[in-house]
Amino acid sequence: MSSRHTLAPARSVEDHRQRIEDLLRPLAGRETEPVPMAHALGRRLTQDVYSPLDLPMFRNSSMDGYAVLADSVAIVPATLPLAGVVAAGNTGAPVLPAGAAMKVMTGAPIPQGADCVVPVEHTQSDGKTVTIERGRATGDFVREPGTDVRAGQLLAAAGTVLRPRHIAALAAVGLAELPVRRKVRAAVITTGDELVQAGLRLLPGQIYNSNGIALAAALEDNGAEVVSLTHSTDDPEEFRRRLDEAVTAADVVFTSGGVSMGDFEVVKDVLTPLGGEFGHVAMQPGGPQGLSVIGGIPVLSFPGNPVSTMVSFEVFARPILRALTGLPEITSSELPLRDPVHSPAGKRQFLRGRTTDHGVELTSGQGSHLIAAMAHANVLIDIPAATTDLPPGSLVRTWPL
Amino acid sequence: MSSRHTLAPARSVEDHRQRIEDLLRPLAGRETEPVPMAHALGRRLTQDVYSPLDLPMFRNSSMDGYAVLADSVAIVPATLPLAGVVAAGNTGAPVLPAGAAMKVMTGAPIPQGADCVVPVEHTQSDGKTVTIERGRATGDFVREPGTDVRAGQLLAAAGTVLRPRHIAALAAVGLAELPVRRKVRAAVITTGDELVQAGLRLLPGQIYNSNGIALAAALEDNGAEVVSLTHSTDDPEEFRRRLDEAVTAADVVFTSGGVSMGDFEVVKDVLTPLGGEFGHVAMQPGGPQGLSVIGGIPVLSFPGNPVSTMVSFEVFARPILRALTGLPEITSSELPLRDPVHSPAGKRQFLRGRTTDHGVELTSGQGSHLIAAMAHANVLIDIPAATTDLPPGSLVRTWPL
Repeated sequence: MSSRHTLAPARSVEDHRQRIEDLLRPLAGRETEPVPMAHALGRRLTQDVYSPLDLPMFRNSSMDGYAVLADSVAIVPATLPLAGVVAAGNTGAPVLPAGAAMKVMTGAPIPQGADCVVPVEHTQSDGKTVTIERGRATGDFVREPGTDVRAGQLLAAAGTVLRPRHIAALAAVGLAELPVRRKVRAAVITTGDELVQAGLRLLPGQIYNSNGIALAAALEDNGAEVVSLTHSTDDPEEFRRRLDEAVTAADVVFTSGGVSMGDFEVVKDVLTPLGGEFGHVAMQPGGPQGLSVIGGIPVLSFPGNPVSTMVSFEVFARPILRALTGLPEITSSELPLRDPVHSPAGKRQFLRGRTTDHGVELTSGQGSHLIAAMAHANVLIDIPAATTDLPPGSLVRTWPL
Repeated sequence: MSSRHTLAPARSVEDHRQRIEDLLRPLAGRETEPVPMAHALGRRLTQDVYSPLDLPMFRNSSMDGYAVLADSVAIVPATLPLAGVVAAGNTGAPVLPAGAAMKVMTGAPIPQGADCVVPVEHTQSDGKTVTIERGRATGDFVREPGTDVRAGQLLAAAGTVLRPRHIAALAAVGLAELPVRRKVRAAVITTGDELVQAGLRLLPGQIYNSNGIALAAALEDNGAEVVSLTHSTDDPEEFRRRLDEAVTAADVVFTSGGVSMGDFEVVKDVLTPLGGEFGHVAMQPGGPQGLSVIGGIPVLSFPGNPVSTMVSFEVFARPILRALTGLPEITSSELPLRDPVHSPAGKRQFLRGRTTDHGVELTSGQGSHLIAAMAHANVLIDIPAATTDLPPGSLVRTWPL
């Protein structure tokens, strides 16, 4: 029995990304969900929102003062009988007797029969009468209904990313929830017998599981909601159980590890018979990739080296997730290289770099296991597949991490 | 009995803001809290974090292949006896018999006695022996301990705002939680008999409560955690109960309404005997302001008109909250005015404006109750107290909302 391994021709980064985006784009169709106002900050409206009512709803005072008929105070000082007090929140439809004044608080309804308000600063009162020291014209300090917004008027357009000021306005017309773009629900399954969760003691040969928490952070950072984060050993039955749970809970599933050419490639071994496609994408790091659809749910299988996992996310998942959520696109910059770069022919390379005042430099380690080194990077340097050598000073495309 | 109202001289915006910042700045002293990795995204480290271990912790293979002594494959093809398989996660300290090969998976420990790995692509195996088709040098495809990070080495510096790549690295060394700047805990109490919560039907004279949800959104947006959001009627006993609850739960309390010159100013009436100071700040909107310290907790009392509340937050609370949380400072821009502005002498005005390609224009309504109009604004236009008239084209300072 020969186990000679032959490699299928590698797919290009662009092709693989296109296939992923084609699978994920329909998620935008299930896009609206109502959220309570308290959770609406930063979400994106999916519909134009119109005011259900006039604001103000009723004529009210913009000052603490006395509601009068302007004619009653045409000659000042004028002393008028005090016919009562109208507080804000008065629901009794107050009426002003002819020739009298009523005390009104800011926001209180203007009594029927009054047409202006004299601010309290320009009055004196003994509790039974009030002396008005300054005349006022009809409409002074009166807020008329509908002067802020009319029922049926547009308050916030579809596509608006909700800021506190929008929330203030939408709450003021009594809305309790808003139609916003639904977050993509993502599940993450890490795999590998060697992985141990933080806080436990490592045995020789074991390492801590960083891919789960890092993918969850990356998903959240790009507008997705992580509905499940689990780990499976290399036992196919366990992975299959985790997978079944994940596709039930999520719109899209991410796995890490188990996709390469070893003897215990649990992700590839379980998903291939279910129609999953596994092979090499012409890139470094992150070459081995898998793509499956299980129960209608796309499953993206990234390699398990921590840097490979994170670069795979950046290259294949981040742009489409941001588009689905309505977050701003990540844009690249052209920067001069400080260091020379040698890159293998036929593979698009994503080097970890750090921007400086003068351009971009490579971070110290470029191996796909060098996750601590990656923490010091703030960009991916994108070297096209056809490029093999770049001298210092060459302009390269960089993507912010 | 005369109820003539005389106004104390107004305090300047700068003075009032300084007093607030002096009260809030000590909150930075209670700044560190541990958060689990899963909630660390976007938080700011308060301490340098060093690696507790070497990464990799042990010599391991960077490929699926065969671990051999380079000398054994100096002449190829070379057929070696197969002495077993080392999976990733093998905790058994495997040993390579002299002259043999052991199959190793990516990440698996290199058996003692081997010094390189031959990738599986350059081999053939019948299950008992393996034929190596290409020689390798000592160290090929072997990851040495500590080549990513050494125990004791800095992984992330104090002040780092945690991105997914930092979380990946910090999880990889087994950290389960991180020391981050604690969020400021804020409580919000809205007041006023006239306020009704969303979803209920309004009676004449009532309005919906928008200040609570809007202040909560603004607090959250600027890095604070809203630990309580309550409403009180104008009943002093009810407000006092809400206040006592709030100062128990929070680092800082925000109230809206009840600070002006009416007869039912519950916030002012309750807080003044407790040492609170209420008066006018020389600004529009947002003139009436209160500031108290209850049980050691600063209480900021904003006026109740919705626009006044939001502008008060922007002017007095947002800068210091962002500084306490470690968020980037809000910076102003100088833009040319499209419209003429007339401003009352002696009051700093914060007009609501919208930026255009050519500068900034006023939004349609500037009354302090025009909250729907404010939703269309994206900046506050800051008109100094001494300025009374500005022709179109004048440069004005604007603050992004």
